[in-house]
Amino acid sequence: MSEKARRFKAERERLNELILARDNLNIKRFFGLDTAVYRDGALDAKTKEMLGLVASLVLRCDDCIAYHVLQAFELDVTDEEFDEIMSIGLVVGGSITIPHIRRATDLWHDLSTRE
Amino acid sequence: MSEKARRFKAERERLNELILARDNLNIKRFFGLDTAVYRDGALDAKTKEMLGLVASLVLRCDDCIAYHVLQAFELDVTDEEFDEIMSIGLVVGGSITIPHIRRATDLWHDLSTRE
Amino acid sequence: MSEKARRFKAERERLNELILARDNLNIKRFFGLDTAVYRDGALDAKTKEMLGLVASLVLRCDDCIAYHVLQAFELDVTDEEFDEIMSIGLVVGGSITIPHIRRATDLWHDLSTRE
Amino acid sequence: MSEKARRFKAERERLNELILARDNLNIKRFFGLDTAVYRDGALDAKTKEMLGLVASLVLRCDDCIAYHVLQAFELDVTDEEFDEIMSIGLVVGGSITIPHIRRATDLWHDLSTRE
Amino acid sequence: MSEKARRFKAERERLNELILARDNLNIKRFFGLDTAVYRDGALDAKTKEMLGLVASLVLRCDDCIAYHVLQAFELDVTDEEFDEIMSIGLVVGGSITIPHIRRATDLWHDLSTRE
Amino acid sequence: MSEKARRFKAERERLNELILARDNLNIKRFFGLDTAVYRDGALDAKTKEMLGLVASLVLRCDDCIAYHVLQAFELDVTDEEFDEIMSIGLVVGGSITIPHIRRATDLWHDLSTRE
Repeated sequence: MSEKARRFKAERERLNELILARDNLNIKRFFGLDTAVYRDGALDAKTKEMLGLVASLVLRCDDCIAYHVLQAFELDVTDEEFDEIMSIGLVVGGSITIPHIRRATDLWHDLSTRE
Repeated sequence: MSEKARRFKAERERLNELILARDNLNIKRFFGLDTAVYRDGALDAKTKEMLGLVASLVLRCDDCIAYHVLQAFELDVTDEEFDEIMSIGLVVGGSITIPHIRRATDLWHDLSTRE
Repeated sequence: MSEKARRFKAERERLNELILARDNLNIKRFFGLDTAVYRDGALDAKTKEMLGLVASLVLRCDDCIAYHVLQAFELDVTDEEFDEIMSIGLVVGGSITIPHIRRATDLWHDLSTRE
Repeated sequence: MSEKARRFKAERERLNELILARDNLNIKRFFGLDTAVYRDGALDAKTKEMLGLVASLVLRCDDCIAYHVLQAFELDVTDEEFDEIMSIGLVVGGSITIPHIRRATDLWHDLSTRE
Repeated sequence: MSEKARRFKAERERLNELILARDNLNIKRFFGLDTAVYRDGALDAKTKEMLGLVASLVLRCDDCIAYHVLQAFELDVTDEEFDEIMSIGLVVGGSITIPHIRRATDLWHDLSTRE
Repeated sequence: MSEKARRFKAERERLNELILARDNLNIKRFFGLDTAVYRDGALDAKTKEMLGLVASLVLRCDDCIAYHVLQAFELDVTDEEFDEIMSIGLVVGGSITIPHIRRATDLWHDLSTRE
């Protein structure tokens, strides 16, 4: 994994722990649900990650995008599939998604150019 | 097709024609692109429609949702798959997507309960 | 209750039932959570409804606004409090919230002018 | 003016009066400011209406769009200028603006086809 | 106050001064209004800050969130109240609010763990 | 040009090249369209940049705003015109645009205070 990806994951984990340690039941239930909807079901986990990625892209949430890019990469989304997901997000969400596509593609490129 | 779906498609077509008759080149190019990104490619058309549907849902665009619901139905998305797409949109986009999920499910139910 | 409010509630209930009958576990869990966060806790239910109302307003979700207006009215939010909630949403979310403030105020006026 | 435009303006006026009658000082100040920013200044009123129109379009606020379409028509925005404003909104905001462009173009067409 | 909070406030002040020195009357009026709506009224300042905080959260504006977190802390919002505000924003706005809840909770934790 | 502007442009260019090198036809077509809509037409390029700027502002896309600020500066938008564009975005989009107006004004100030 790239250095950028590693730092992203570490900070994400630190803050998730901070939140969960506060012990608000409803927030914990939401976090559980947020994991559950991406599990294999009628749709497989790979398709669900792609759905999560395009949804995060059009809503322009960089941290969410980064998370789903990492997941998509681990679930063997290909280069061509990645670009097609980006192209749909771009047409649906318009040119304001471009800065996010830039950063997503940068991270994807990082992941896919190291063996 | 249900009466509701029929009226939706007719009004959509009438207004698309009104726009395209104005002959603005860039708007026409956008409409062409908007068709192109959903065509079979590395990802098949069915997966792309699911991506278009979840993106429309989290952006809360009722007409876009209705269009992709019709497309998804024609491309044999199943009931369970439809619900899982809705569940991901709901968790990503929050309770403000619920009114749109209500209307999408109503349309889906209409489509799937007539033979 | 006004006729408008009555019809809104009936349609909302019909569609909620349609969704819940589909029996998607994660959607059901979300609906449960959506009820739970507004219950009396460290903050009382009235304050929580006001939070739900202003959040719905700035996100410009008419059905969500209508629901929280009804709840706020039942929990004895006063006229002056209602206007102050609207004024905060207006300043935070800008003039694009005005059409929603118009409809929210119309509904509030309906509720508060019948005994 | 078309029947559609007339009804839109009447309902808008009725609800504005309802809001202003409530006499919340901050809401009144906002309404004043909302008028003031579109007045002739370093930029003329026509340019400012075009700015208001494209901003309303990308934020997908139908009532705001309708209002600025009426204003733009009265300030002699031409057919070609109207289409170019739409095309910029479309590229910036993506295909989710299309339903709003449909309705805006329908209203513009109504206005411009009656003498 | 934590170092992070101090730097945030200093940069915010520097840029506010830059804007106000430009002397655009309407921008100044907006800034005045933005202060006015949070003052004690029918609702007290603490409740109003909570409304501003949840509105900023669902609109995912980090600087706005940080500002209201600081205000809420000074107005004696408790730990439990803070978490409940976050939980409502999370359910209304969905998982895309989580990165903002992470940063808000980090700042809140900073403020509340120094005496 | 200021150091900040120079770095922004260099990073933007690096990432655009990364994206275009991937050779996805639809993304390339979108990039072409994104250039085309801002060219002189019925509306001149300066007016179109102002439209792009206010649209980017209300959608709160910092990179898009920075790009249009640079373009607007090169096309001789004046200080007073810049402030009026900001004021319209502020009223339409509300106080959540303020952090973006702060950064836009900072960049504008940078550009206009070096000869």
